[in-house]
Amino acid sequence: MPERDLQYLTELAAQLRVDSVRAAAEAGSGHPTSSMSAADLMAVLFACHLRYDFEHPGNPANDHLIFSKGHASPLLYALLKAAGAIDDKELLTFRKRGSRLEGHPTPRLPWVDVATGSLGQGLPVGVGVAMAGRLERLPYRVWVLCGDSELAEGSIWEAAEHAGSEGLANLTAIVDVNRLGQRGPTRHGWDTGAYARRFGAFGWHTIEIDGHDPGQIDYALGDARNTRRRPTVILAKTRKGEGALEVENREGAHGKPLKEPDKAVEELGGYREARVEVHEPDEAPAPYRFEGGPMSLPAYEVGDKVATRAAFGEALAALGAARGDVVALDGEVADSTKAEAFAKEFPERFFEMYIAEQQLVAAAVGLQVRGWVPYAATFAAFLTRAYDFIRMAGVSRASIRLVGSHAGVSIGEDGPSQMGLEDLAMLRAVYGSTVLYPCDANQAAALTAEMADIDGVSYLRTTRGSTPVIYPPGERFPVGGSRVLRQSHEDRATIVAAGVTVHEALAAADELRDAGVPVGVIDLYSVKPVDIAALAEAATTTGNLITVEDHRMEGGLGDAVMDAVSELGPRVVKLAVTGLPASATPEEQLALARIDRHAIADAVKRLL
Amino acid sequence: MPERDLQYLTELAAQLRVDSVRAAAEAGSGHPTSSMSAADLMAVLFACHLRYDFEHPGNPANDHLIFSKGHASPLLYALLKAAGAIDDKELLTFRKRGSRLEGHPTPRLPWVDVATGSLGQGLPVGVGVAMAGRLERLPYRVWVLCGDSELAEGSIWEAAEHAGSEGLANLTAIVDVNRLGQRGPTRHGWDTGAYARRFGAFGWHTIEIDGHDPGQIDYALGDARNTRRRPTVILAKTRKGEGALEVENREGAHGKPLKEPDKAVEELGGYREARVEVHEPDEAPAPYRFEGGPMSLPAYEVGDKVATRAAFGEALAALGAARGDVVALDGEVADSTKAEAFAKEFPERFFEMYIAEQQLVAAAVGLQVRGWVPYAATFAAFLTRAYDFIRMAGVSRASIRLVGSHAGVSIGEDGPSQMGLEDLAMLRAVYGSTVLYPCDANQAAALTAEMADIDGVSYLRTTRGSTPVIYPPGERFPVGGSRVLRQSHEDRATIVAAGVTVHEALAAADELRDAGVPVGVIDLYSVKPVDIAALAEAATTTGNLITVEDHRMEGGLGDAVMDAVSELGPRVVKLAVTGLPASATPEEQLALARIDRHAIADAVKRLL
Repeated sequence: MPERDLQYLTELAAQLRVDSVRAAAEAGSGHPTSSMSAADLMAVLFACHLRYDFEHPGNPANDHLIFSKGHASPLLYALLKAAGAIDDKELLTFRKRGSRLEGHPTPRLPWVDVATGSLGQGLPVGVGVAMAGRLERLPYRVWVLCGDSELAEGSIWEAAEHAGSEGLANLTAIVDVNRLGQRGPTRHGWDTGAYARRFGAFGWHTIEIDGHDPGQIDYALGDARNTRRRPTVILAKTRKGEGALEVENREGAHGKPLKEPDKAVEELGGYREARVEVHEPDEAPAPYRFEGGPMSLPAYEVGDKVATRAAFGEALAALGAARGDVVALDGEVADSTKAEAFAKEFPERFFEMYIAEQQLVAAAVGLQVRGWVPYAATFAAFLTRAYDFIRMAGVSRASIRLVGSHAGVSIGEDGPSQMGLEDLAMLRAVYGSTVLYPCDANQAAALTAEMADIDGVSYLRTTRGSTPVIYPPGERFPVGGSRVLRQSHEDRATIVAAGVTVHEALAAADELRDAGVPVGVIDLYSVKPVDIAALAEAATTTGNLITVEDHRMEGGLGDAVMDAVSELGPRVVKLAVTGLPASATPEEQLALARIDRHAIADAVKRLL
Repeated sequence: MPERDLQYLTELAAQLRVDSVRAAAEAGSGHPTSSMSAADLMAVLFACHLRYDFEHPGNPANDHLIFSKGHASPLLYALLKAAGAIDDKELLTFRKRGSRLEGHPTPRLPWVDVATGSLGQGLPVGVGVAMAGRLERLPYRVWVLCGDSELAEGSIWEAAEHAGSEGLANLTAIVDVNRLGQRGPTRHGWDTGAYARRFGAFGWHTIEIDGHDPGQIDYALGDARNTRRRPTVILAKTRKGEGALEVENREGAHGKPLKEPDKAVEELGGYREARVEVHEPDEAPAPYRFEGGPMSLPAYEVGDKVATRAAFGEALAALGAARGDVVALDGEVADSTKAEAFAKEFPERFFEMYIAEQQLVAAAVGLQVRGWVPYAATFAAFLTRAYDFIRMAGVSRASIRLVGSHAGVSIGEDGPSQMGLEDLAMLRAVYGSTVLYPCDANQAAALTAEMADIDGVSYLRTTRGSTPVIYPPGERFPVGGSRVLRQSHEDRATIVAAGVTVHEALAAADELRDAGVPVGVIDLYSVKPVDIAALAEAATTTGNLITVEDHRMEGGLGDAVMDAVSELGPRVVKLAVTGLPASATPEEQLALARIDRHAIADAVKRLL
């Protein structure tokens, strides 16, 4: 590398440090030292290797850069300034109310694909973006800046396994091994060999360098670009707070502005206004998309018994035929979730993520970055494994579709470890989420198709066992709607159910009607948003609501109903799972949990 | 190994297979083929290496055996029969209602430490049990039977990292590499070398063997027992369904009984009643316990401003001085959670788990298996990373104490990735959980101490910023209680708050009182269980409740209140976080989320 270039890169890195220090000083908080350690790495990446058109962040040929160590946001924003994407005035709005430059990066910035800040997530999401690049046959590269602390997260090794085994050569992890975590030294300190052995064992090309030497960095990034059939990890030994004596390589200097920022800026050579001309990408072919066709959802005959999970699988396959942008992923249980129906028809758009639910969800997030419409399925119970990823998908405004099968005690003999009993609570609490819970096969098919167009995180809850088909094929079930299944002017209460309990509610209503107690039944298939109007009408006409759900008492259907009608003041009785189930048949489980037809009828009688 | 012994081991393994086939056949479900692959491994372990007193499962000298592949429960139950712990009649109750022999093992059986069945959890919990053994200076060994599929879980590599780095030589993972997952081949098939490279890179002693050869198994288990300073993983190549032609090494034979069980039993040599005499452990010294002393909780003066997280840390340190059985763990943020106060006083009882929240919770579960009283702390937001482990801790009836700091939007500038906004919903939905949310330092200290005696999963939610001390030192705050902070006969509504919003509620009540609208204020520090009596009184006297919480609208404090009073029919208005926060000061955050004093006062006025 010519002397002139080296000098420029050193200057650029110094400016990135200066601007990181300035931004945090102005904000009065932030992570300047975690930014300073990675400044040389990013300076060389931007100046020499990144291919990105900052004026057109949607250019499909653009590389993708993910700050997995999201707390190094000052560095990212300093880079955006150097690249001319933002100006110095905006840089100094860092962490202020209304600023796009949040404490941790979010996609409010058009150059940011996903929100980071919960460590160990950027790399798994980067795997998803790299999978998308392969799928759409684009030559872009995915660069992920990781911290060394976050390599302790298991999700990093799920990503390492998937990328290594799939040979995602378009993915490069750049690890800023600055030796210091938040509260002290990391487990492996500067032992880059410890990390290299681990990544190497997972099939990665590994490069260990001095992360403050532009020549070594340039070589490593070039080596990564030229490596075939394997992802590359660059393990760069750095010093946290590099360049400012007050903080350089010192403990206790994490996540706070410098005490003497002006002095540090001076040490770093003062304020600069260097620009970096990031190479625009070569013109790339149009992203490959699979062909679509007419939509032909499966149709089930009223009265037949079909599991909603089976209808989901068949509907997903139908959706795959209709839309070339739909992709599916599963956590090694596609024969149970029934995503296998899609996998058989469209193997090139199906991703077996094995039993790694965090990577399953992260891959879905990564695929949607590039406009794909992902459905990710596993047991409802095991989606709890990925809750932090689902939460962050909400923060990323990512549009992903999650499908959880084997919901509730009604799975039967397998016992509580396999029962999704917290999933409604978990998914309802996610920002911008939609939660759907069909009770029959035609409804499940319709909702599966509808999810393709839902923004944000959406969730379909399916049932293991077969349930009677009660709706004719072709009916519509809009998000936020409900269905009144029993209603009369004499109704003395209204039962609100969803999924498997709809059938119990119908049986209870029939039993009660025969006993001279007419009650209404609402199928609340849209658990979030709920049909406030229909619930309000029931609340005001009968004044008595009984909710029944195959889920824990907290945070599910019953809470959603109460929330909808709370200002109207009806009496609401919730039936839900309170104890700890063990093994039993599905029918026994419903009875033992007191959410079957008899328990519902009893509850109505007690209430009246 | 003498011929006679080999023959006996082969016979014993055949019996384990026969009984696995019989139990699943009788149940009509279950996982016999996943049991059959590991039968030789477990036969040799029980006959030659396990040290266990089945009549006294509480004997501290006992080894610990965890079936991380919990679906191989038929094998575990067949082993219990062979060891004389259960009889054949009970074996055949497998998966039936009321039986202790559940679809996946749970601690309803006295020989089972923890529930398994959510894959990738047994090994991390085993790490915790091994940590306990080192802490209490007992010579027991921890044996964990893993499946090969579950090695895809990131949590396995969190466990590998912790055990390898800590040199937990008392831990042995036995991996049943049967090549077939649920829906087909695993990623690495029979390539035990792929797994050996990975575990080796994480610092483990690795042994690759034929898992159906008793001699090799015996050698490997002995080698594991004799290995110092490193944990051992035995990678055993096996055939799923070994011994029965119908299923042996065949796809599509997962998780179901054999079609022709009688034929398989015949192939396997027929029904047997062999016994295995498991060696009882040598008499061990009494478990080491740290000394306790008098309890002296920190005291804070009313009117001072102290963060509840700081009070938690100081109280935990005080608790550590009082009780020798209290231990603490943290996810590399002890300077933020303030668990560092404990770490400084009791370094030998503090465990730095680095940024690996699944292993953090699993280690707590493992430590409580041996009677320790663990407190595990990280940011509330990052506990979402471990939700499946928390859920399973509930199923295990494990007594663990979780502490989540930096709850809510009130953290300020760091933004949504760091804000715990779903934690109340998540924790409330866990079986048998207790959820506490203090508003001042003395209350936080009292609740921290009280948690030590709570059974099951308990959770303390702490706040980043300083809040005024409103309770004098020494007051009691029983679980399930609340505090009425403002009350008069003229109250027209009652504000129910907890944590940071208590102070906003008090300010709103003062403002409203001055405006001629007297309202009551309840501090609902116990979010689960809630104080139904106090809420019912407020509901019936004022008839109007306003709940306000620094948490999402779904599943938190507001839902808990509505649930408590739903049958009384008051009007309830919930104030909670609905939008997606960005960076702003804590005060701005509360205002923007409409949960500050002004928003509360407005809500009261609108309601009236």
